[in-house]
Amino acid sequence: MKKEILFGINPVLEALKAGRRNFFEIYIAKKKISQRLEKILILAEAKKKPVEWVEISQLKYLTGTDRHQGIGARTSPFPLSGISDIIDNIQPDNTNHLLLLVDNVMDPHNLGALVRTALCVGVDGIIIPKDRSVSPTPSVSKASAGALEHIHLVRVTNMVNTIGVLKKKGWWIAGMEKTSDKSIFLSDLTGRLAIIVGGEEKGIRLLVKKRCDFLMSIPQKGPVTSLNASVAGAVALYEAFRQRCLC
Amino acid sequence: MKKEILFGINPVLEALKAGRRNFFEIYIAKKKISQRLEKILILAEAKKKPVEWVEISQLKYLTGTDRHQGIGARTSPFPLSGISDIIDNIQPDNTNHLLLLVDNVMDPHNLGALVRTALCVGVDGIIIPKDRSVSPTPSVSKASAGALEHIHLVRVTNMVNTIGVLKKKGWWIAGMEKTSDKSIFLSDLTGRLAIIVGGEEKGIRLLVKKRCDFLMSIPQKGPVTSLNASVAGAVALYEAFRQRCLC
Repeated sequence: MKKEILFGINPVLEALKAGRRNFFEIYIAKKKISQRLEKILILAEAKKKPVEWVEISQLKYLTGTDRHQGIGARTSPFPLSGISDIIDNIQPDNTNHLLLLVDNVMDPHNLGALVRTALCVGVDGIIIPKDRSVSPTPSVSKASAGALEHIHLVRVTNMVNTIGVLKKKGWWIAGMEKTSDKSIFLSDLTGRLAIIVGGEEKGIRLLVKKRCDFLMSIPQKGPVTSLNASVAGAVALYEAFRQRCLC
Repeated sequence: MKKEILFGINPVLEALKAGRRNFFEIYIAKKKISQRLEKILILAEAKKKPVEWVEISQLKYLTGTDRHQGIGARTSPFPLSGISDIIDNIQPDNTNHLLLLVDNVMDPHNLGALVRTALCVGVDGIIIPKDRSVSPTPSVSKASAGALEHIHLVRVTNMVNTIGVLKKKGWWIAGMEKTSDKSIFLSDLTGRLAIIVGGEEKGIRLLVKKRCDFLMSIPQKGPVTSLNASVAGAVALYEAFRQRCLC
């Protein structure tokens, strides 16, 4: 069975809490014990997960990084969801639902940041393509502060087809596009909506863009008119959130 | 005279465009010339800035990083603004103005990301304390995609005193505080407003918090209830932006 090495306090803690991965071994650095690591130890014990004390040098070797914060875990791979897991259980009369589609984002930090915000906003799930995206790796889990461990994430072979499936099920598709004249603040982001965020350099692929019901942009002032992809996604997700509730 | 080594395409390009730094030397890596580097070369020539071609290994040595993207520049230090530069020229009848105050943010990436968003939103300026913040270093310029080169940034010795000065001048002070019951979406963010964003771990210092006119939070769902500091700042800045215009 394929295994992964999670690293960092939040990813291991949140994976334990979420209970979606098998834990084969938790590695904790000797002499590095902190209050937050102790919290994980207590949880691991309660959940009967095996813990091994290792030297810091060994932890670096096992996790392949210096950014392990004294902890790693050998687990089953990230538990991907299917598209039907997300959308099939939604009742027809249940209106406000939100999906995040991510296209052309290759940087684990940007995907991680988007996952973190998406979980805070309460999206039903995230959809990424297999070929034009970073995978949900341990680095993405780290960059998401462990939020990845709780999110329903789907990897699809063909994003264009997936958009077709969503449309048939009554979802609206809104693409983020810098050159669009339509402001996110003047767009209706309620109802059953999928927001597509593209990578910083290239944005959303043309074929994907063509399938959107509408394109929208974040109004910007000033001489450097480009937001970071994860910030742009966050502002759009929170505008949808705002429109859906009294907050 | 103190000098700094900027690195990366955006910082050097935006610093050239902004025209606020003296350029003593621009270093460009041989054999690394790209379309974007060529754009800088043309601009440097037009502005009569000296360019030196160097080996990549030398550029790494000069900039102290691998993330130089083939370019570095020896310049005067970041041109700090004074508080009076920002607020004294505002006319009494001119209502909507926005400042970003950043407290306890030690990570150059977070400050850089906040600067980038703040410039997009069109803030009048950013205020950081001298002792509880990363300085506006070349790394911050890089993380801001060069936005730092255009922003009015003030470093103050005593943030509490500065808030007092702002209040006397008719500014309202809103602090971001996770535990606040008041949603940013239900707060009035128009008028002459300073938004204070704190660091991820510690938030805003207690003494600073006490001087705020009101505290506000971003509503969140889900099991991992914490946004990244730069994302939280971006959502708040854009909510202020939204409330101020028809967008």
